[in-house]
Order: sequence, then C-alpha cells, then structure tokens
Amino acid sequence: MSKEIIVFGEVLLRLSPPNHSKTFKSKLFEVHYGGAEANVGASLSLMGLDVNLVSSFPENDLGASAKSEMLSYGMKTTIVEQGERIGTYYYEHGASDRPGKVLYDRNHSSFSLLKKGMIDWKTIFKNANWFHFSGITPALSQDLAEVCEEALIIASEMGLTISADLNYRPSLWKYGKKANEVMPSLIKYCNILLGGADDSENCLNIKTAPEEPFESVYTKWQEHYPNLKTIVSTLRFKANASSNSIAAVLWSKNKLYRSNQFNVTHIIDRIGAGDAFMAGLIYGLTTWPDEPQKTVEYAIAASCLKHSIAGDINLSTINDISALMDGATGGRVIR
Amino acid sequence: MSKEIIVFGEVLLRLSPPNHSKTFKSKLFEVHYGGAEANVGASLSLMGLDVNLVSSFPENDLGASAKSEMLSYGMKTTIVEQGERIGTYYYEHGASDRPGKVLYDRNHSSFSLLKKGMIDWKTIFKNANWFHFSGITPALSQDLAEVCEEALIIASEMGLTISADLNYRPSLWKYGKKANEVMPSLIKYCNILLGGADDSENCLNIKTAPEEPFESVYTKWQEHYPNLKTIVSTLRFKANASSNSIAAVLWSKNKLYRSNQFNVTHIIDRIGAGDAFMAGLIYGLTTWPDEPQKTVEYAIAASCLKHSIAGDINLSTINDISALMDGATGGRVIR
Amino acid sequence: MSKEIIVFGEVLLRLSPPNHSKTFKSKLFEVHYGGAEANVGASLSLMGLDVNLVSSFPENDLGASAKSEMLSYGMKTTIVEQGERIGTYYYEHGASDRPGKVLYDRNHSSFSLLKKGMIDWKTIFKNANWFHFSGITPALSQDLAEVCEEALIIASEMGLTISADLNYRPSLWKYGKKANEVMPSLIKYCNILLGGADDSENCLNIKTAPEEPFESVYTKWQEHYPNLKTIVSTLRFKANASSNSIAAVLWSKNKLYRSNQFNVTHIIDRIGAGDAFMAGLIYGLTTWPDEPQKTVEYAIAASCLKHSIAGDINLSTINDISALMDGATGGRVIR
Amino acid sequence: MSKEIIVFGEVLLRLSPPNHSKTFKSKLFEVHYGGAEANVGASLSLMGLDVNLVSSFPENDLGASAKSEMLSYGMKTTIVEQGERIGTYYYEHGASDRPGKVLYDRNHSSFSLLKKGMIDWKTIFKNANWFHFSGITPALSQDLAEVCEEALIIASEMGLTISADLNYRPSLWKYGKKANEVMPSLIKYCNILLGGADDSENCLNIKTAPEEPFESVYTKWQEHYPNLKTIVSTLRFKANASSNSIAAVLWSKNKLYRSNQFNVTHIIDRIGAGDAFMAGLIYGLTTWPDEPQKTVEYAIAASCLKHSIAGDINLSTINDISALMDGATGGRVIR
Amino acid sequence: MSKEIIVFGEVLLRLSPPNHSKTFKSKLFEVHYGGAEANVGASLSLMGLDVNLVSSFPENDLGASAKSEMLSYGMKTTIVEQGERIGTYYYEHGASDRPGKVLYDRNHSSFSLLKKGMIDWKTIFKNANWFHFSGITPALSQDLAEVCEEALIIASEMGLTISADLNYRPSLWKYGKKANEVMPSLIKYCNILLGGADDSENCLNIKTAPEEPFESVYTKWQEHYPNLKTIVSTLRFKANASSNSIAAVLWSKNKLYRSNQFNVTHIIDRIGAGDAFMAGLIYGLTTWPDEPQKTVEYAIAASCLKHSIAGDINLSTINDISALMDGATGGRVIR
Amino acid sequence: MSKEIIVFGEVLLRLSPPNHSKTFKSKLFEVHYGGAEANVGASLSLMGLDVNLVSSFPENDLGASAKSEMLSYGMKTTIVEQGERIGTYYYEHGASDRPGKVLYDRNHSSFSLLKKGMIDWKTIFKNANWFHFSGITPALSQDLAEVCEEALIIASEMGLTISADLNYRPSLWKYGKKANEVMPSLIKYCNILLGGADDSENCLNIKTAPEEPFESVYTKWQEHYPNLKTIVSTLRFKANASSNSIAAVLWSKNKLYRSNQFNVTHIIDRIGAGDAFMAGLIYGLTTWPDEPQKTVEYAIAASCLKHSIAGDINLSTINDISALMDGATGGRVIR
Repeated sequence: MSKEIIVFGEVLLRLSPPNHSKTFKSKLFEVHYGGAEANVGASLSLMGLDVNLVSSFPENDLGASAKSEMLSYGMKTTIVEQGERIGTYYYEHGASDRPGKVLYDRNHSSFSLLKKGMIDWKTIFKNANWFHFSGITPALSQDLAEVCEEALIIASEMGLTISADLNYRPSLWKYGKKANEVMPSLIKYCNILLGGADDSENCLNIKTAPEEPFESVYTKWQEHYPNLKTIVSTLRFKANASSNSIAAVLWSKNKLYRSNQFNVTHIIDRIGAGDAFMAGLIYGLTTWPDEPQKTVEYAIAASCLKHSIAGDINLSTINDISALMDGATGGRVIR
Repeated sequence: MSKEIIVFGEVLLRLSPPNHSKTFKSKLFEVHYGGAEANVGASLSLMGLDVNLVSSFPENDLGASAKSEMLSYGMKTTIVEQGERIGTYYYEHGASDRPGKVLYDRNHSSFSLLKKGMIDWKTIFKNANWFHFSGITPALSQDLAEVCEEALIIASEMGLTISADLNYRPSLWKYGKKANEVMPSLIKYCNILLGGADDSENCLNIKTAPEEPFESVYTKWQEHYPNLKTIVSTLRFKANASSNSIAAVLWSKNKLYRSNQFNVTHIIDRIGAGDAFMAGLIYGLTTWPDEPQKTVEYAIAASCLKHSIAGDINLSTINDISALMDGATGGRVIR
Repeated sequence: MSKEIIVFGEVLLRLSPPNHSKTFKSKLFEVHYGGAEANVGASLSLMGLDVNLVSSFPENDLGASAKSEMLSYGMKTTIVEQGERIGTYYYEHGASDRPGKVLYDRNHSSFSLLKKGMIDWKTIFKNANWFHFSGITPALSQDLAEVCEEALIIASEMGLTISADLNYRPSLWKYGKKANEVMPSLIKYCNILLGGADDSENCLNIKTAPEEPFESVYTKWQEHYPNLKTIVSTLRFKANASSNSIAAVLWSKNKLYRSNQFNVTHIIDRIGAGDAFMAGLIYGLTTWPDEPQKTVEYAIAASCLKHSIAGDINLSTINDISALMDGATGGRVIR
Repeated sequence: MSKEIIVFGEVLLRLSPPNHSKTFKSKLFEVHYGGAEANVGASLSLMGLDVNLVSSFPENDLGASAKSEMLSYGMKTTIVEQGERIGTYYYEHGASDRPGKVLYDRNHSSFSLLKKGMIDWKTIFKNANWFHFSGITPALSQDLAEVCEEALIIASEMGLTISADLNYRPSLWKYGKKANEVMPSLIKYCNILLGGADDSENCLNIKTAPEEPFESVYTKWQEHYPNLKTIVSTLRFKANASSNSIAAVLWSKNKLYRSNQFNVTHIIDRIGAGDAFMAGLIYGLTTWPDEPQKTVEYAIAASCLKHSIAGDINLSTINDISALMDGATGGRVIR
Repeated sequence: MSKEIIVFGEVLLRLSPPNHSKTFKSKLFEVHYGGAEANVGASLSLMGLDVNLVSSFPENDLGASAKSEMLSYGMKTTIVEQGERIGTYYYEHGASDRPGKVLYDRNHSSFSLLKKGMIDWKTIFKNANWFHFSGITPALSQDLAEVCEEALIIASEMGLTISADLNYRPSLWKYGKKANEVMPSLIKYCNILLGGADDSENCLNIKTAPEEPFESVYTKWQEHYPNLKTIVSTLRFKANASSNSIAAVLWSKNKLYRSNQFNVTHIIDRIGAGDAFMAGLIYGLTTWPDEPQKTVEYAIAASCLKHSIAGDINLSTINDISALMDGATGGRVIR
Repeated sequence: MSKEIIVFGEVLLRLSPPNHSKTFKSKLFEVHYGGAEANVGASLSLMGLDVNLVSSFPENDLGASAKSEMLSYGMKTTIVEQGERIGTYYYEHGASDRPGKVLYDRNHSSFSLLKKGMIDWKTIFKNANWFHFSGITPALSQDLAEVCEEALIIASEMGLTISADLNYRPSLWKYGKKANEVMPSLIKYCNILLGGADDSENCLNIKTAPEEPFESVYTKWQEHYPNLKTIVSTLRFKANASSNSIAAVLWSKNKLYRSNQFNVTHIIDRIGAGDAFMAGLIYGLTTWPDEPQKTVEYAIAASCLKHSIAGDINLSTINDISALMDGATGGRVIR
C-alpha cells in the first residue's frame, strides 16, 4: 500500500513516576511522547503502513525530542514549528484500587496555537487515502475546532476515508462550548467512528435510553450521520487499575460483530489502549475490508497487548497481534 | 482543628532491594524512613491534622535525613538527639508465594537509649488532645516500657484521648519480659485499641476460646480495661505476598461494625497497611465521632490504598480515600 | 555430603530490558548469567551441596564476569578457556497476554567450540557421585553431542548417578540431526529424567497416544531405557505470562506421585523454573531417597519460588522451600 | 535567634536529564525543586535559622510535592494556593565546553498570578527581622513587581533588614519594561545587595566605565541608594562547564573585602551557586556582624561547596562550610 | 540542499556499563547504536542535510531497534534485511589512567554477510551528490572490500564527491589481507580523506619519515592519489581517559590550515569524536567550500563537543557548534 | 604458586548514595562489600594468587551476600558464623572541595564478637606462606587485639611471611587503649609494613622529627622491629576529593626506592587505594623478590588504577597494571 494515512493531533510530553511510585514523592520521571492520534499513527507505521503525522512543536530541545521520537516509529512528519512549549501531562500509574491519574499541563502549547490556514492540507492529502483525528483536538480551542473542520472539508472533497475517535474528556472542554455543540459538524464527515453509548448525547446530540442495545444506538447514529459506515466501541469489565477484562463491538452494514473477551490480569500501562484498538481497526479495515469479524478481533487483540507495553504507543507487530488473535496467550515463552 | 495529635515511636531507616529483587544479590537499596507510629502521624498530617512526632535520632547525616523526611509530611517533630545509630531494617518485598521478609538491625539505636525523664511530656501535651503509641516501643527495652508508662500517666492526667496499636511482634520482646507482663499496665490508660483475638492472651492476659466471636472477645477486653471505648481489628483473607482480601471490624458501644471487603489484587508495598488503617481510624473518630460505620469504612479504604503505595507511609489524601470508600475503584483513569 | 555433583553445560549472558519494557525501545539491559545446567548447579550449591560446573568461556571480561558469577553461588568451576565470545541471549519479559521472548545470539560461542578430548572427565569425576546435563547441549552441534556421550560413558563406568533434563527446544537443533536421532544414545545412560509426554516421540523415539496417562508413558520409557529409575514432569495450567498454576509428577518404582498445585499469581521471572525443579529433585533424591512424595513436593515448591525471583537462578534456601512445602504462603511477612 | 527570615519568590520544578545526558534523547528526568529565593531560605534553615518561605503553588500533586520538599529543609511556608501549574524549567547539565542549558517553561504559573493584596505581609513580618527577594520576581510581570514593592514598603516600615540579589536575566523581562525601569524603585529599600558591575546600568541605571574598580562602582551605588550598607559580588574565572575558579568581594563601610579563591575542579551542579553565596552572606552578617572578611570567606566557601552538590539547594552544614573556610579541602576522607 | 549524502557502514549495538563501572562486575548495560559511518550521517542529518544510511540488519527486535534509532536522527535508511545477529561491541568507559576498552563481538553479523550485487547503488545514488565510507568496512571481509569497490566505481561514474575516514584498526583486519593491500584500490576514488601520518604506510603504502611534517606527507599522498582534494587529520595531546587536548589540520590546495586547540577537561564519552569531526568537515566543505579555515574550525569544534555527549553520535546542533567555534565555552549557563 | 595467602579482617557492608549525591537527601544506596584486608585479598586473587579470607559474618541474608561477593573474586573463605549484624558503613563520595565522608555503623558486628580460640589458625596456616592483617582489627576491641596476637604467634612459628598495614584511624580506637599501647606487640612479628611518618609515634611509639626523611624514620623502625624487611608508604599531593597526585616509597636493605608519580585527574572511588597498593606490593614481593623498584612501581600503578574503579576493591588485572607501569595512560582506547 503506497497511499498515506494522515493523522492529525497533539503530541504530548508525558512524565511518569517510575515503578508505581506517586508523583507527590517522586524524584524521577520517565519520559514518553504520545497523543491519541500520534499513537494511532505510530502503531500503523510499525505495522508497515505509510503514515504522516501532522502536528505542531516548539523550536526547542523538547520539540526536537518529540519529533525524533515520532520519526523513530517510521512515520513521516509535517510539523508547524511555533510557540514556546510542548503540551505536557503527568501520568501517575495506578495499582489495584488506586486509579491512574492524569494531570494535564497542556495549556498554551504550540499545538494549541494552530489556526485555520496554517496547514497546507491539500498538499498533505495529495498522496493520502485516509485521515484520522480525535475529539480531543476540537475540545482544546475554537481555533482547533476550525482547523479540524477545514481539514475534514478538504479530506472529504479529495475522497479520503475519514476516521474519528470521539475520545470525550469533559475536563478538556473549557473554551465555552460543549462537545455536542461542536462535534456534530465534524462527525458528519466521518466514515469510521469509535464511540460508546455514553457519547451519544454528550458528543452527538442523540438521546438514547439507558441500557439501549448497541444495534439500536448505532442505527440512530447512522441516521443522523449517514457517512458513517463502521462504528466501534471498546468494552471494559471488572476493572481495577491493575486488571481488566476487555472486548469490543463493531457495527457494519446493520450487523453487530462482537469480539472475544480478554482478561488482562497484569496491566503495565493503561494509556493508549483505545488508540491501539483504533490502529488495529484501521489496519483491519484496509487489509480485510470484507471481514469485519476478523477486523474487530485484530483490533481488540492489539488493544489487549497494549496494556502490557510501557508508554503511550503499541509496539506490537502484526505477528504479535495475529498470534494472540489466533489463540496464543503469553503462557509459553517464545524461543 | 488546632489541638495536636502526639505520636511517639521509633523512626527506622528502611533499606529495600528494588524491583522485587532479593537482598542476597542486591546491588542497590531503596531508602525509606518509617515506623509504626510515625506512619500514623504522617498520614494524619497529610489529611490536614496537626501532628507532633516525638522520637530520638543520632546527630549524624542519617538522623538529619530521617528528620527531614518526617518534616516533609508536614509534621512537627520533637527529637531527642543522642546516640550513634538510627534503627535500621532491611525489607525484602515478597511476590506470590515468596513472603516479604523483615531483617531488623535496630539494636543500640538512638531511640533505644531513651529513658524516663528525658522527654518533657507536659510541654509536649500542652496543646494536644490525642496521644498515640504502639506495642513495639515497650517491646524494645524496660526503659522504653517505662517511658511509655510515664507518657500515659501524664497524657491521662491532662485529659488526652489515648490510642494504641498492640502490634505484637514476638521476635522483638527480648529483654526478659513477656508482652502480657508489660502491656496490661499500659493498655489500662487507653481509649482506642487496635488488636485481634490472637493478641488477647499474648498481650492482654485474657483467655479467649478458639473462634470466639469479636463481640465476646471485645466485651471481655472492656471488662478488664474499662477505659477502652473503641476496639478495632483488621482482617486478612486469601492472602499471598502479592494479593490479599482485607476488611475490618470496629467495636463501639457494644456494637460491632463490619467494613466492606476489598480485594487488593496487586500489592505494591505491604508495610504500613495497619498504620494506614490506624490513621484512618483516628481521622474518622475525630471527624465523625458519631458515625462508627463511616469511620471503619474510611479506615479500611485508607489501608486498602496503602497496599498500592511504595514506602511505609500512606500518601493518600482525604479525597483519594473518600472516593474509594464511596465505591470508586481504580478501573477508570482520573483526568 | 562430600562427593561432588558435576553439572555440564553452557553459561549464557542474558540481557533483559528492565521493568517489562520491550527490547525494541530499551535503553538499558539488565545483566544475568545462567544456563539450564548451571542453574541447577547454583541452586544445589546454595542448598549446601558440593557442585562443580564444567563449561567453557572466552578469555575476556565477559568470560571473567560469567565465571565470577558462578563462583558467587559457591560452586567450583572447571572452565576451558577458548574462543572469542560468550553465548548470549536477550530475554524480554512478558506480561499478561504478551509472551516472554528469547532471542538467541549463541552461535560461535566458546562453549560451542568444545570437542571430544578437551575435558578431563576422569579427573573431574574422581570425587563425584552425580552427573547432570540437559538436552540443550547435544542440540548445539555434533561435537557437543559427542562430548556428552564421552562424559556419559565415563560417568557410567565410574558409577555416578546420571540425571538429564530433556529440555527439548526445536529451534536449537540446526546441525542436521533431529533430537530423536541423537538423544536415545545419551538417555540410555541416565537414571533420572525430566521430560513430558510431548518429548516421547521428539526425543526418545517412543510413540505415545494422545492424552496417554503418565503411568503408561513412563512405563514405556523404562522399557526402552532400563537405567531410568525416576522420571518426572512439571505441569503448567491456566497460564499467561504473568500467572500460572504449576504442579509436577514423579514416577518411581512403578508408582506415580503427584505434587500439590501452586497458583503463581504474579510471576517475576519465568526463566529457570524447570531448572529450579530439577535442583529440588536432585536435592530430594539425595536427601530423602525413600520419600518420593516429599521429593516431588520439595521440587515443585522450589520451582514455585523461582517464579518470584529475578534472574535465571533460584536463590531460595532450604528453609524457604521447606516452609512453602509445609504450607506457608507469602501472605504473612517474615519478621 | 528566634526572629524569622522571610524569603519571597517562585519555587520551580526542575527537570534534568541524568548523568550529563542531553534533553534531546533523554528518557528520564531527575526531579528537583528550587528557586533563587527558596534556595537561600533552605540553606539558611539548614544552618539553623528560622525561615518562612512565601510563595504560590497550584493545588495539585506537583504543588503538594514542591511544598513537601520545602518543608523537608525545615522551613515554614506561607503558600497562596491558586492557579493550575507550577513554574517549570528543564536544566541540561553541561560538561567541558558544552554549556549548561536552562529551558524555561514557567509562564502562566501559580506564582505568576500573584497580585497586590493577596499576601498578608503584616502578619508574615510580625515575628521577622529580615526580608529577602531577588530580581527574578519583578522581571516576571507588572503585578509581581508591584507585589515586591508592596512587601518592601511594609518590611521597611516594620524595620526589617532587606536583602536582594539582582539576578539579572534579560530573557525573563518580557512584559514591556526594562529592568532599569523597575528595579530602582525596589532597590531603594534594600540594605544588602548582590550585584556585579554589569548590573549597574542594566538594573540600577548607573553608568560605569569599563573595568571600573569595585570600590568606585559600589560608592556610586551607595550614592544613589543610600540604604545600601553591604554590597557583594561573586567572581568567576577560567570557567568551562565542568571547572571554575571562584571568589567574591564584599563592600562595607567604604572598604572592599576580597575572599580567597577556590578552584572548583569537578562541578556536580552549577545551579544555585549564587544563592548558596547569598545564604552564606546572610548567615555571616547576622552571626558575625562586625567581621566582614569572615563573612565573605564563609559565603564563598558555601558557594564553593554548592558546586559539588546535586540540585538547586546547598545542603552543606555550618561545619562543612567552616571547615573549608578554615583550609580543609576535600583531599582527605572524613572518618 | 536537496541532494542526499549517502553513508555506508555497519551499525553496531553498543553495550556499556553505566557510571564508569567495569564490565567485569556490571549488572546493567546502557544501550546505544552507532558505527563510524552512521555517526557521520546522523550528525549531518541533525545539521539539516539529507542523508541516506545504507546498511544491513537482521530481521529481529535488535535490527528493528537499530533501524528505529537511525530514523530518530532524521536519516533515511536503505537496509538489507538478512542474517541472524547485529554486530555488537562492549564499551567500558575509561577514567583518568584507566583506558576505555572496546570488546568487539561483531563477527557473523548481518552486515558482514553483504556481498557484491546485493545493494542497488545506482538507484541509491540517483538523487545523491556525496558518498562516505570508512576503512572499517573493507577490514571486515574480502566481500565487504568488494562491495566498497563496487560502490566507489559507481559513485565515481555518477559524479559524487567521495569521502573516506581511514579509521585504521589493526585488530579488525583478520581475513588474510593487510590494509595496505586493500585500501589503495579504494582510496584512489576518494576526494576527501581523514588520516594521519601513521596511516601512510599502514593504509596507503607510502613511506614517510618519522616526524615528517603534514605538508610533506600530504603532498606525497596527493601524488599517489590524485583525486584527493582535501586531507585532514585530528591531533590529540596530553591525553588520559578523562581529559584531552585536541586540534586538527586541513590540507587543501597545497596549504595547511591548523585549527584552534581545545582542552576537553571532562570527557563524557570518547567514542565517535572522529566521526563528529568528519561530519563537521563534510558540513563545512558543502556550506563554505571556499573557507577551509572556517571548515576545520567548525569540524574540530564539533569533535570537541562530541566528547561531552553520551553515546556514539554527536547530538550538537549547528548553533551549538558555531557558538563554540566563535569562542563561547561552557562557562556560562545558557538561559 | 600453590601456597595460600591468608588475609584476616572485617568485611563491611558499604552503602553509598549514587552519582555524588548526599546521604542527607539520598533515596538510593549503592551496595558494596569490602574491608581493608579483604580488599587486599580480593585483588591478589584477581591476580591469580590463592587467597583465603578469614572473617566472621552473621547467619542472615547480608552475611550470605557478603560471603557470596567474596567468593566472586575467586577467594576461599573461612567464616565464623555468629552474631546478628554485619558491620556497616555509609560512604558519601566527595567532589572537588567537598570531602568524602565515612559514617561508621560497625559496632556490635559479628566480627567484633570474635575472641581468642574461635579460629583454628593452625589448620588455616597449614598450606599458607603469607599472613596479612591491618591496624583496624586491633583497634576494634581488646578481644580482637588478642586474636591478632594469637594469629601472629602461630603464623610466626609456622614460618609465614607477615605483612601489615598500620591503617591508623583514631576514631576507631575507643575501648580504652591507644594504638601505641597495642600495636608494638603485634608489629614485632611483621616482615612487611605499610606506614608513614605520622604513624611513627601514634602506632609504633617511636619519636621522629618533623620532616624527617624516610631513610631515617625507617631505619629507626627497623631498629625497634628487627623483623621488618620491607617498609612502604604511599604519598599524596595537591589533593582534593576529585583529583590527586600519588607516589610511593619502598625501603628495603637500607635503600629507598621512589616510584613514579601519577596524576589521578578524575577520581571515581577514593576507597581502597591503599589496599590496592598493598596487594600490588605483595604481588611484587612474591613475583619479583629481587626487584624492589619494579615492585613499588607495580604497587603504585595498581593504586592509581583503583582510583578509577567503583567500590572498595581493585578489579584491575596484571595486564592492566603492567601496561600502566610501562607507560600507557588511558589516552588511547584499547580495541
């Protein structure tokens, strides 16, 4: 495949106390770089697809470091260099009943300074066939919501497949608009959507009943957003900070495909599990377009493995994921 | 609350091999400072109460470091500077069926040199309304048992509430007396007591039948020690070194309150779980004096969280503990 | 006991990314030295037996380091210094559904250069009563298979007890022969054998039916290899990379002894669990020759503890293992 | 001495790549907390003086951590809790000809939100006799310049001794005023000043000739700022990032006192050397008010030792500094 | 500049004990990837030039990691995936009079399996104007010497500028030929050469007198190798493992340009200093083709900074190098 | 050489803050095991001599770890297992003008419990020809002084060569006797002595004039202690905690041999430099008995290298030391 996948979003510096220690007493922070969309792109690149990351960094050592890290996954990058700081977050790993904790320090970042007209989407999309973004970007500012819309209009005109992860995080919507005042005008361009029943009213302005089945919810979503071809959601059960059961559903052509369920008994890193799923989904949709069951199995296996990998990004290869999808668990050492 | 809580006990230097490695082959030790009573005090201080730690350190870099660490939790300190060494212990973390292992190297410590008359209890108690100690101190020497008695008589006269953790550790009683020859004369001053059925004969000289219910045991205790108002015990089930189920009971006004049970599936640090419970108990008793059920729930939630926190001291805030008490588990990342 | 146990095999440099990180992005490797047979010897030495390790190292810093490490367990060593490199492997710890991964880089090692006649077995065996090797060595080269045979003939003549671990790893047999073309001529000298039903055809050239009971399989083995007195196998259930259930069987005098089952809920290091079992077995057979049940319980308890210990070698003492065998789990801190 | 020294300034989170590695490729940051004024206060507190730090932190884990660290040095704290982020800087240690590098990320910090009227200076100064600040604070915003003036007026009225470190850093003056438009109205209240000839025009609006001797420069300063009693400057020669020669001058009662010169041959941490000097100066001025030569020797010895100590804060004791002042170098191990 | 620089050589996994510890007792190795030619390429890429690295890796996690690291510097890569192992070396840092120590473990690497015809030089050189290699590659095998010749013939035909670093390491020439039997047929294609008087006979088969001046030596070299336009050498004085004085000479158009001398007082990493010089040289020759003095100053400043940077690769930017070239030393912290 | 060298002394657990950090704020300690006499023995063992270490350890994990470490250097050990604690010291590395700092915590150690009659010297000395001890042991207690005397009498009777390092540390002599009341009765048995002019009166009860030349001092020593054949002293100039110049003198047959002087510009670890010298001396005296100049050069080169090696023990090989003795400095990387 030679057409590129374009991912657009902020890359954050993540600082985490090592070995499950608490931020309060930590004398060391481990450094990772990631972001919802970059995580998707990096994982796809490691699977062998051609990916271009569109983002913005400051022209300083941390911006250079973030870019270097993104290059290390094999992605191309299109970076607007501006501003003075990289968006940052502190992630304290949880354990058992102590939850993981994100402390954002991302205001005033280079990425948050992006405005309509700064990015040459037409050139970027020229050799591309897919565009991916998430609901985090339009949450950050009115300007960024407009940049998203700008990109979506052009991507749509140029015939790219468009995927989005709703990624609804109430604490990020601080500029005076609610998610459901902004997201509908963006989601209408999308073909692939990751979102759960909770997001229906919050992001899409669609009322649903409590416990309403996925089939019904997603049917409504497609009525309002007719470009949607595939809708997916991840499911999480019996969870504490160290162990989870996960599964997923995929809705396509009026049919719901439910994946196997995995018991993740010892979580190494909880961040990026949804992004790993999204990457698996895009890989599946492009590789096996007519096999939705296989696609959702591959995507949830990818997500399952991400829980065992430190950092924001799923480092698993196609082989790793396929083996788990085909029934191998970690019980046997690979030699 | 402006009256102080006084905690009295030894602060130990703890040296632990990192990452579950064994002492036998360890090339690094992680440094923590803690002690049964200091752990209670530090946790209460982090909850916003005024705490004064009474202890003894040598006048060297390790004594200075121990004191600095105690100050870092917001406690005041009243330190007798004397002697040549800080009490030390080596803690090897366990895992699965391999138990955690304490190797004491605390003989001849500065604290062990304390004698009656060295501490000006009257001044210390002047602005205080609570005194806490544990059964570890009178175990260390005849002198220390006398210092405890001295403090208890004065605290009692000055009207402080007195709490004790029996903390019965047979290996520490080496100076020729048994715990039940010493503890009764101290416990008679106490209002709040942490102890289980096993301690009845060992520490309190009270015979109990096997499997005798808490109601019956604690009724007997109050008959012998009429100052006791509240008696508590923590319970531990299905335990190995990495996972435990815990719960607690609280006996007050002839009624037994039983807490929820928590499954701690991935223990980070087993030390100080009882001290975290004790701190939660004191916080509850002073904050919600008429809500014993709420108090025992808060205390066990505090203890549950301690299992997920490295070091001897519970770094959890009131918010962290209350959230868990109210049903939040670590399954969802806090953003 | 003053007679020596002779273990013969390669000692490998093991490089592992710390803290469950992936080799792909690792900036640090933890250094361990081990090997199937050295692991057995080191564990026996830590249990107080006299052990001599026969191996080959290069005359450089890594060879010196490997030897120093072997000495640190109290073993004697008989080392052929030759060649230019130490056999190496990269071990990436698994977690949950992500399997542990061995990447061998052991070709052209000093050990692989050993040939018949290089080792003075007669002198080595003079004060010995036991010889142990594993199926890894004859897998590496024709020369090494011949060295094994040479040692076995002499050991046999000199009346040593001979034990072997089949340790069948298909990826290592690369020099043109299959395991079952080589192993039978070696196993015929053995008295003690660690192997499972899967190995029957692969290593011993004996057909077995699917799900054939151990009693039947092992009876056939003894028919073909009449020197075999004791045959054992470890069993592993419900396994992922972080938690396993383990047990073992021991076949002796036409009777099958089945051990307790242990749930290893939090694996620290998966490597060397079988070697720890083998060491426990040899210890049991020499210490309690008439108590096969006790022996298999001791061996599986040793193996259980190894899962909780970093590196290739079981650092557990006789006390540690006996306590677990007698029912102690890690639920209580040892003070 | 029971009167307090009040230090006012921002406490920054400092993140440094370990072991002289570069930010660009760093996977770990070491965590320190410090700031020009807090460094002075912490050092004075470790020397046994009573110090109160006035600052502002966000109400989050990093704010709590910064406060805990400040308490650990024995200081009291008066903290305005507000805002969302702690001022941060990245410090890359230099080596040989590669300079150390500060990357500020301190805009929009809690401290930067301080405004006149937020701090109750009268209460804070009630039990104090000294006020210290630096030229960094008025550089950050118009509001902070006004807070400084507010504090200085009250301190002056209440009779406190006032010290300032000019600490001129051009890159921080970004709100539209130059240092020499702001500083004069603050320095006029000061009694003790740390500043060099370069600062004369930049900060004090006083022209000096090139190579003008200290005596002449400082005489002019006193003419313009008659409250100045003592003026000091540190001197640095033959410097690269790893080795420096340092000395200092102290001007008092029309006389210049010149300190010994120290060759710091192996710098561990270059940050805070001036603050360590300032703390030594204040200690000397309060302890030996009539011995300016002793004071400047003590202050430069303190600064010399700081170069050998990791982090922002001089951890040296009075004994350490006095020993060096009296001629002991590090050539002999202390036992 | 849009034409690419092609660098061809082996990328090695480097394993180094941290903190100046010795390999013999090391329990950790720090991981770096580098190689004489890759180091040149990475440095040029960080300076903004377009670089393509031609090399060979195994198709395993270590090969993937090496490639990822090379991408992280912004280089393109053309990799032949083959073989089973990555060339490895252990580097023990020296200190004072203890020399740094390289232990090669690079035999049988993927790179060593390269043969003529495996690399499509014509395509690789299509958009290139520069080819760089070093004397290490033809030292490794007859095949690799032939690959070099193959590349040089094509590069020469296609009009690329060709640079070489003689990098004479006697211990690597083990396949039966001496350097001066192989190198002349390669150097005859070169335009730029890094080599000192010692290399004259060893590599170029040209006799020189002891202490013969550079002017004379290099004149002879040009007589034998008329394609040589620029010849350079680095000089090292008063060296121990921790401090060196360095300088360089550049010979061009019959004139010798001598650089400033730098005292590197505290070496962080001795490896790659020559490669950093080579990168600086290529940058200078392409940027300031008519300013040989500026070029040699830039190159030696680059090399000087490399000594202060951990790993094999010079992470310095053009700004860093230019500042040092213009006289800034590390004595002042950059803010 | 097959006769053993017997070294007798305490092995201490050493705990050091890493990376030049201060004990006061350290959260990690690096673990080393060493002691004046064990350091000598380990170095001799690494040089290929047969060494037996006689000492005493507690029967716990730290005792086992100390013994394992001693075995790792190839020494044999004869250990009295007794007591409850291993002697411990905290070593804070110095830097520049900040001195290194030893904080002893060795009272009540297993070794300090040794008494006359506990050690079977006759058996130990049976296959030995050399006995080494230091002045630290008789400083610790009356009992230990008697054990030394006991050993010396037997060693003397059995014809062993006896060496001693005076190692005078005033802070250790606390049991009521001065060094010069005890040492003379021990030194009278010695043939080889390491001591400087300062020790003359303190340890040997011999008055010397200030600046009295070595020839004169040592002549007096031999008059009082006629068994002395060789006397040596190390010299240290221009020292701070990071750089030293060192040399040594050796007195034999009325002649003084002075070694080369080495500038140790970057000290990694200051501990054990004298012990490394002593080991070099013993190696030289046994290897080149008639070449005192060569011996003192070898010994000082060994000591020089020790400054560059972390921990208490000189890990240098004969090759390393000989190369430096022959003029190689660390300026060139060994490949």
